[in-house]
Amino acid sequence: MEAYVLLGGPTDLWPVNIKEILKDARKTNNLIVGVDRGSLYLEELGITPDVALGDFDSLKKADLAEIESNVKDIRYSNPVKDLTDSELMLHIVFDDYQIDNLNILGATGGRIDHFLINLLMLLDPSLRQFAEQVSIMDKQNKIVFFNPGRHVIKKVSEYPYIGFAALTAIKDFNILGARYELHHYSGDYPRVFSSNEFLPNTSQFEINFEKGMLAAIYSKDVNRFHNL
Amino acid sequence: MEAYVLLGGPTDLWPVNIKEILKDARKTNNLIVGVDRGSLYLEELGITPDVALGDFDSLKKADLAEIESNVKDIRYSNPVKDLTDSELMLHIVFDDYQIDNLNILGATGGRIDHFLINLLMLLDPSLRQFAEQVSIMDKQNKIVFFNPGRHVIKKVSEYPYIGFAALTAIKDFNILGARYELHHYSGDYPRVFSSNEFLPNTSQFEINFEKGMLAAIYSKDVNRFHNL
Repeated sequence: MEAYVLLGGPTDLWPVNIKEILKDARKTNNLIVGVDRGSLYLEELGITPDVALGDFDSLKKADLAEIESNVKDIRYSNPVKDLTDSELMLHIVFDDYQIDNLNILGATGGRIDHFLINLLMLLDPSLRQFAEQVSIMDKQNKIVFFNPGRHVIKKVSEYPYIGFAALTAIKDFNILGARYELHHYSGDYPRVFSSNEFLPNTSQFEINFEKGMLAAIYSKDVNRFHNL
Repeated sequence: MEAYVLLGGPTDLWPVNIKEILKDARKTNNLIVGVDRGSLYLEELGITPDVALGDFDSLKKADLAEIESNVKDIRYSNPVKDLTDSELMLHIVFDDYQIDNLNILGATGGRIDHFLINLLMLLDPSLRQFAEQVSIMDKQNKIVFFNPGRHVIKKVSEYPYIGFAALTAIKDFNILGARYELHHYSGDYPRVFSSNEFLPNTSQFEINFEKGMLAAIYSKDVNRFHNL
């Protein structure tokens, strides 16, 4: 089973087809989870989440009451707490629901400390085991995570660019068979290798590294209405 | 002298008063720099940058020609390169123009690998000395950077929240006199301590740490038009 989780990030950064993504998820009996304001957004999209979690502090009473009457599994988090809502969500979907893959929406934009929690939460030793099962998606990016080893990076047709971010110190990082190769890079601190591409007529290349955690960021340009 | 630099990130994430910020910078003879598409945005805002840099690949010929005829100091970067445009910009403003403080705009949103370059570029050993002179600002966030030592965190009136992100491994990090205190935290990997606040009737608190680099993220909520 997969899980689709909607966090409370700004709605203008959602993938344009978010409604189809979530309706398909419902049809195929995947788990749908709302985190804090994300639960309300799901209701507004016409989808009652299977699980809602958060402190719900920022919601109006009537909105919270609607969630409480519709959602079967509600978890109230403590605003003064060791685990952030995002971390609690990871434990619920992987430990309680034993899901195989997690797709996170609504995790980007807005307050940058919130985004960075979502980007970095998998570094927690109790969560690293789940890293390769998680993706974060918004209007123009898809982020996936890798633990050490050898990995095939597959082309995703809508995204022409791919960048790699070492989220930690990293040991012996190699990019093989992409437009820009990298050989035996090791570094003591996080670093980004941006704007790589697939070679013409190829649909995959290889990366490998010995220690650390990598995020691969698939991205595309979007046309923006731009009015100064 | 201060520098105000506009990068090519999405215009809808600019601070709402960006025009005033830049016009004031011009009046007070501070340095104004456009990076790649940021140079064009500056021209469109009615401000000719003092320095323009980038590979300018994504600009139309006529737009590039306008920049070339107006801007005194143009630096062409190599798209296949060791330094990113953002890193090249840091060397130009600090080494060539010897500026005291750098305010970066247009650095957030859009492609996440681009944003992460801007967030993490100061970790490069040749750039760490400049970290405390740099800030990144968008519509709802202001990010500043700290090297090890003792620092006073001052309230900035428009931002109710402040989060801290250890961008590297960190040693003996303390937050003293804020709403949520932290004592003697050390960690091997980046981690975010989000949503802290100033105590009522206080305008500052202290942080200190022995090793690593910290980003402090001031943030506020914004009202968003939200139409599903």
